[in-house]
Amino acid sequence: MNRYLGKNHIGYQVSALGNHVFFGIDPRTNQKFETAFHQASAEEVDAALTKSKEAFEQYRLISIEKRVRFLKAISEKLKANKDLLIHWFCAESGLPKDRAEIEFTRSCFQFEYYAEAVESGYALEIKLDPANPERKPNPRPSLTKLNIPVGPVVVFGASNFPFAYSALGGDVASALAAGCSVIVKAHAMHPHTSSISAQFILDTAKEHNMPDGILCHLLAEDFTVGQFLVQDLRVKAVGFTGSIGGGMALQKLINERKEPISLYAEMGSSNPIAVTKSALQKRSPEIAKQISASVLLNAGQFCTSPGILFIEETANFSSFKEELVRAFSESELQCMLHPGISKRYLERVKEHALLVNVIFEGRHEGNFIQPTLAEATASQFIAHPEIQEEIFGSYLTIVKCQDESEIKQCLQLLEGQLTTSLYADTPEEIDGFLPILTAKSGRIILNGVPTGVEVSFAQQHGGPFPSSLNSYFTSVGWDAIKRFQRPVTFQNFPEDFNSKKVNFNGNSIFLHFLNGKYQ
Amino acid sequence: MNRYLGKNHIGYQVSALGNHVFFGIDPRTNQKFETAFHQASAEEVDAALTKSKEAFEQYRLISIEKRVRFLKAISEKLKANKDLLIHWFCAESGLPKDRAEIEFTRSCFQFEYYAEAVESGYALEIKLDPANPERKPNPRPSLTKLNIPVGPVVVFGASNFPFAYSALGGDVASALAAGCSVIVKAHAMHPHTSSISAQFILDTAKEHNMPDGILCHLLAEDFTVGQFLVQDLRVKAVGFTGSIGGGMALQKLINERKEPISLYAEMGSSNPIAVTKSALQKRSPEIAKQISASVLLNAGQFCTSPGILFIEETANFSSFKEELVRAFSESELQCMLHPGISKRYLERVKEHALLVNVIFEGRHEGNFIQPTLAEATASQFIAHPEIQEEIFGSYLTIVKCQDESEIKQCLQLLEGQLTTSLYADTPEEIDGFLPILTAKSGRIILNGVPTGVEVSFAQQHGGPFPSSLNSYFTSVGWDAIKRFQRPVTFQNFPEDFNSKKVNFNGNSIFLHFLNGKYQ
Repeated sequence: MNRYLGKNHIGYQVSALGNHVFFGIDPRTNQKFETAFHQASAEEVDAALTKSKEAFEQYRLISIEKRVRFLKAISEKLKANKDLLIHWFCAESGLPKDRAEIEFTRSCFQFEYYAEAVESGYALEIKLDPANPERKPNPRPSLTKLNIPVGPVVVFGASNFPFAYSALGGDVASALAAGCSVIVKAHAMHPHTSSISAQFILDTAKEHNMPDGILCHLLAEDFTVGQFLVQDLRVKAVGFTGSIGGGMALQKLINERKEPISLYAEMGSSNPIAVTKSALQKRSPEIAKQISASVLLNAGQFCTSPGILFIEETANFSSFKEELVRAFSESELQCMLHPGISKRYLERVKEHALLVNVIFEGRHEGNFIQPTLAEATASQFIAHPEIQEEIFGSYLTIVKCQDESEIKQCLQLLEGQLTTSLYADTPEEIDGFLPILTAKSGRIILNGVPTGVEVSFAQQHGGPFPSSLNSYFTSVGWDAIKRFQRPVTFQNFPEDFNSKKVNFNGNSIFLHFLNGKYQ
Repeated sequence: MNRYLGKNHIGYQVSALGNHVFFGIDPRTNQKFETAFHQASAEEVDAALTKSKEAFEQYRLISIEKRVRFLKAISEKLKANKDLLIHWFCAESGLPKDRAEIEFTRSCFQFEYYAEAVESGYALEIKLDPANPERKPNPRPSLTKLNIPVGPVVVFGASNFPFAYSALGGDVASALAAGCSVIVKAHAMHPHTSSISAQFILDTAKEHNMPDGILCHLLAEDFTVGQFLVQDLRVKAVGFTGSIGGGMALQKLINERKEPISLYAEMGSSNPIAVTKSALQKRSPEIAKQISASVLLNAGQFCTSPGILFIEETANFSSFKEELVRAFSESELQCMLHPGISKRYLERVKEHALLVNVIFEGRHEGNFIQPTLAEATASQFIAHPEIQEEIFGSYLTIVKCQDESEIKQCLQLLEGQLTTSLYADTPEEIDGFLPILTAKSGRIILNGVPTGVEVSFAQQHGGPFPSSLNSYFTSVGWDAIKRFQRPVTFQNFPEDFNSKKVNFNGNSIFLHFLNGKYQ
């Protein structure tokens, strides 16, 4: 196998000084792979931080044009090595090949897409106030505002997105696009995928003469490496996708720092769906089909997988429920990401059974599961709003409500969510739900399901606590880059500063602005 | 005097249940005013929080048009009551009338200006991705993203801006513009000014049928009220302008919350200035005049007052220094804001004398001070970078450097600053300083001084830690509103949702977008 596998990437060097080793496994078989991965030692973490800071100081001065070319080249490099990446993605996650393909395509696109956000000038958020020397009592100075990178960024790989939110994922792509160096803490559930991803980015970096340390990739099985990283003062921002417990533990560590920094944590969500009477009457089979497909998708291992459904118990409710039971019971067993994850899923299902009535209990074999369907009355939900707590994996609780106002009463008890969905027909119905849904979530889907997060301009992937830690920001879409930037205003600079006679970092970013495109 | 003076405003009610009272003083004479101000009791703080939350739930659903009219009316109300406000501003701060006038004008403008940010659609940051039903393999949904208010906001009045960063200041104006209810913790150094300000806003609110609780105004002399406020889960964001110690104490309290929220703290800054050899050779008298005027302005009680100057010790340095000494020594004694502040200033000057060589020591009488000028060599600064720590009040340390590279070496040791200024002439010189200055500050002034913060679109008032706690945001300019908002994306909403057939909060905000103005 490749010489770097099992080792940490300290910039362009590989290193395996630590004694603690761990192994990847195939969750389909629970078979261990042979390569021993060496958890980064304190010395290696420190070396990565030093290199990352040095690389940042160089990278931030490299022209936008070079940065953009580098980002686009990463996408090309990944595409050229697709088979190897897909192989390890499936082997380490147990996810099917079609999902691997979708996530791979998305991940390549993210590098191109964030490159465009920079290339077009959008990510710089350039703003200009022209001078007015005639103003009384004081002349008005010119002000030009634009975003610069914050510094070295730490990204935690996510268990459920071995590509799209790990070493070659959106956090890495958006941080590199912002002009930051990045240290990835690999997720221990997919060390091969993560290491190979990092190697391809580093190969591209080398080909583009990027500074040594622009990317570091550290292996870790326990929390020590992550703790060291987020508490080090050289680190200026952290990206994390995972559980509420994991995110809050990181925040606690960050709170102990002398210099506070932002943790952009995208944590748990139950992605509630509300279905009105009129929608159910008109489109019951279609709605049942959409919702069950969304719950079932890749064993429900998405932050946007729907876990709770509020619905009026009307005449056709029982046929709707039957549709769901049929879809759930006819579904194939699907492999979960890791024995730890399937074990936790089964524990949560058991715990949850104390709060709700299980209608259909899915089978399980090894790490393979079938979804489970439960129901509760609105009164049960109101008495035990903890029913809403996320179960990671395919699991849906139907909350039966008497009428629309009871649905709303339940929705008021929701904690912050990444998404809420509403099946409704009339403008009046929609209007009535919007104030609650906006208060509770970062994205509202009308007559549709929450899975499928479009990587695009107007996307908001981040909602009120506890679904995210900083709900102004998004971890998907062009605005994701803003997490790793801060603005600087240039006051009283001469006009020729804007037209390249005085350069900013030797590039022409002001020209975009002067062309009037991003005013 | 007015019936409400001395009491807390719990929305439209006034209340004085607490036993702890305190008094305003005139710092010019140290005479106490007669009204006893009742610190808010725990019961009153809780009542204010309840009202604020209820008011928020109503205010957020009120149309943008009404919100805008309300904000503009506040400005009119203040203008109609200018004399009373100016009287108490001067009486409680010791600041001169011309400063009061400037700050008053700015404060009225801020309400109008933030109203425009909302009215124009800018503050909503509306973004749209059109649907593409033909896309393969999956159709692309439409996405519409816009900002909504976060919830009740707590604003701490600032000692040094009794208007512009207190009850009628920029934090209150931007939070109300965002659609949030506001609880002001009045600064104990100007309780009359703050209470009268709040009363005028509340009078306007009542005239505009705004919900009871849209503004609450709480009196406090010690930290208990502020602690209660920032730790209460009904509060969703906090605005603070003050010292590093004060801001960090608040952050520590916020870290103990179950639900994290953002503290937007604008803290200390020494606003370093660098002067190159060529600039000094060409324009020494002009530069000395600008810098001394900036240091002297209102006894240096600005977050942007310059405190440290890095300069090459060239032929005309001694004449430059003489200019500064003359300006400092010829300056009138100026009253500081409060005996506590003048005492602290004199203590800091004394402490600082152990690190630097005092060239001119200002006189002082009561709370009146003259500025002090000190100097240090670059080696002294490098050995004791704590020389840079802010002294609140007129005080300047000149750091004498051998050459440009030594200036840069010193600048590298700076902590994060709100501003840095550079006197330089050639594009090459400017180019050479930019990477350091961007890394260290939120605003860079070329050939000018940091005092005078333009309230405008491209302003950035917020820099790297410890000058601010969250350097992505600004506390001045349209972008200040973003601190109190979060985005929501509407997926798959029909086009007629955007054209008023389905309204969002009964108003027409989407129309701005569809008109193509804010794409």
